[in-house]
Amino acid sequence: MGAPKYLSGDASAIADFLDRFDTFLVDCDGVLWSGEHVFDGIPETIQFLHSQASGSAPLTHPPGKRTIFVTNNSTKSRVEYHAKLTSKGIPCTVDDIFGSAYSAAVYIARILRLPPHRNKVFVLGEAGIEAELRSEGVPYIGGTDPAYRRLGMTPDDFAGIADGSHLDPAVGAVLAGLDFHVDYYKLAHAHAYLRGDHVRGNDDSNNANGETNQNNENTNRAVFLATNMDSTLPMYYSLFPGAGSATVVALAHMTGVEPLSLGKPSQAMLDAVEGRFSLDRARTCMIGDRLNTDIQFGVQGRLGGTLAVLTGVSSKADWEKPEAPAVPAYYVDSLSDLRGPAAK
Amino acid sequence: MGAPKYLSGDASAIADFLDRFDTFLVDCDGVLWSGEHVFDGIPETIQFLHSQASGSAPLTHPPGKRTIFVTNNSTKSRVEYHAKLTSKGIPCTVDDIFGSAYSAAVYIARILRLPPHRNKVFVLGEAGIEAELRSEGVPYIGGTDPAYRRLGMTPDDFAGIADGSHLDPAVGAVLAGLDFHVDYYKLAHAHAYLRGDHVRGNDDSNNANGETNQNNENTNRAVFLATNMDSTLPMYYSLFPGAGSATVVALAHMTGVEPLSLGKPSQAMLDAVEGRFSLDRARTCMIGDRLNTDIQFGVQGRLGGTLAVLTGVSSKADWEKPEAPAVPAYYVDSLSDLRGPAAK
Repeated sequence: MGAPKYLSGDASAIADFLDRFDTFLVDCDGVLWSGEHVFDGIPETIQFLHSQASGSAPLTHPPGKRTIFVTNNSTKSRVEYHAKLTSKGIPCTVDDIFGSAYSAAVYIARILRLPPHRNKVFVLGEAGIEAELRSEGVPYIGGTDPAYRRLGMTPDDFAGIADGSHLDPAVGAVLAGLDFHVDYYKLAHAHAYLRGDHVRGNDDSNNANGETNQNNENTNRAVFLATNMDSTLPMYYSLFPGAGSATVVALAHMTGVEPLSLGKPSQAMLDAVEGRFSLDRARTCMIGDRLNTDIQFGVQGRLGGTLAVLTGVSSKADWEKPEAPAVPAYYVDSLSDLRGPAAK
Repeated sequence: MGAPKYLSGDASAIADFLDRFDTFLVDCDGVLWSGEHVFDGIPETIQFLHSQASGSAPLTHPPGKRTIFVTNNSTKSRVEYHAKLTSKGIPCTVDDIFGSAYSAAVYIARILRLPPHRNKVFVLGEAGIEAELRSEGVPYIGGTDPAYRRLGMTPDDFAGIADGSHLDPAVGAVLAGLDFHVDYYKLAHAHAYLRGDHVRGNDDSNNANGETNQNNENTNRAVFLATNMDSTLPMYYSLFPGAGSATVVALAHMTGVEPLSLGKPSQAMLDAVEGRFSLDRARTCMIGDRLNTDIQFGVQGRLGGTLAVLTGVSSKADWEKPEAPAVPAYYVDSLSDLRGPAAK
């Protein structure tokens, strides 16, 4: 694979790039904004893409190129993302949004299909996950419930989690995402569900030896799902702890179990996007700031192209390293450079 | 290496075992107790060891075999451990205790020697770490300070951490241990100190690209230390999230930086124990429940022997796996089996 083509300031290269694609999958954090700060020219750039002729977009879609916002940030639901995008002047409909919380809810409801007596999901995350689970009819506990938002552990907490009396035997899955209210109490609950401590009559595999004793498989262990594995979150032009760090790798390290991630670069997410939007992968481009999520997602999914922006996590030096997880086909300094030099 | 020798119920094997050692390094969680529950016969077993003839103990020590309690649990200081041990009837002095919080404090004060303008430690942990840092004269922030114990993040929190105005420029190290009050707010602070966001005039390496851009080394990054890396904590006859999971791997994943651990199996801890207690390693035995901390600690340190107990995390099946991190020389079902079959 050749070096990524730099488009910023090069009108003919941009024109060629735009000709190749009808659909753009657009990451949000680090591409459109950093927290509440929208980067310069972003609304105009999305409008510009919609104004450009499309070769083969589905008939159901308005003329022009299509933008679909594909985000790993699970703290907001599609409805909340729609409100944020439109409040920032970025044109979109709710159906143009595909988040990892929604991706996880769809996976649980339509593919995982937990048995009725074990169909609850223990949530480590914010309201966005809860809203999407509700939209798919999936029962859950934890999440933003104030009963789980407390610091410190009492002897009663330890005892009740250890003997299962404080746990819900109907939990069949743990779904971990970004949680600004993560605490030890929630981590301890999630850990116990992943060990299977919530189902009685299970003493052989639930003693203190259970952790590494994988031979003695506990069939009551909850399924471990993650909305995404992002190590950091671009906010306020800096980086903050991401879902992958603050909850997911912590639980994986405790239990020795790796989660199924339903966010980028998981191809389960791309399959779901493709099914929903009737994508022509060859004429679709993934736009993102992060090599190990966005760009890897597009490369592994054999999309027609990938475009890296330098307003977020990854830098040019990152893809020049031999150990780079993926290399983009194109890059720009900022997404708004796609409008061309004349727009500056 | 041969299979571990099983001592429980075998009086002559126990007698041979006891003849080989003068000093026993004894882990606490999972060996003496599970949380507040002391295992049967533990006080009598420690007394029994003290009553057995020692070949070459230092003259400063009373006759009989010596027990030193070596724990990775950083939530208590040596003084608090002494109070717990004696309240449970286990004979010891404060000087018989060597915890990872003390180990870390000694390392910071006597080996790391931070410069005066960067000598504060940001603590992710409980009062035990604070007490040991105070005992060594090391200034710290974070820890149990109520200002850092809060759930959720405000826009002001994000902004103040991102621009450094809420950070202390005198922080030179982050020390992570077991924290029952871990929250996103503290994780975000620790992450920012490890990125070097607290020192001004540093914009090139502190933008949102800073995470993986290791070429652009930020010399203001705080040193990353951990009291220990234990993935789980044996409590109430079950397992709970350990320091390694809830704080240390989370921070390592965010930053891409591995900490220096001052707890077992780190040989820095054994060197410190040896210096303080004038150990004859050949006549010293490590007793513990965990292969990847206790037993590995003893094997790598070329101690005369290692004894695994089955009352904690690891099981016999664990050391029979090809990928076992270490294999003990001896094992018993419970530490109290060392008193021999007649004591039952």
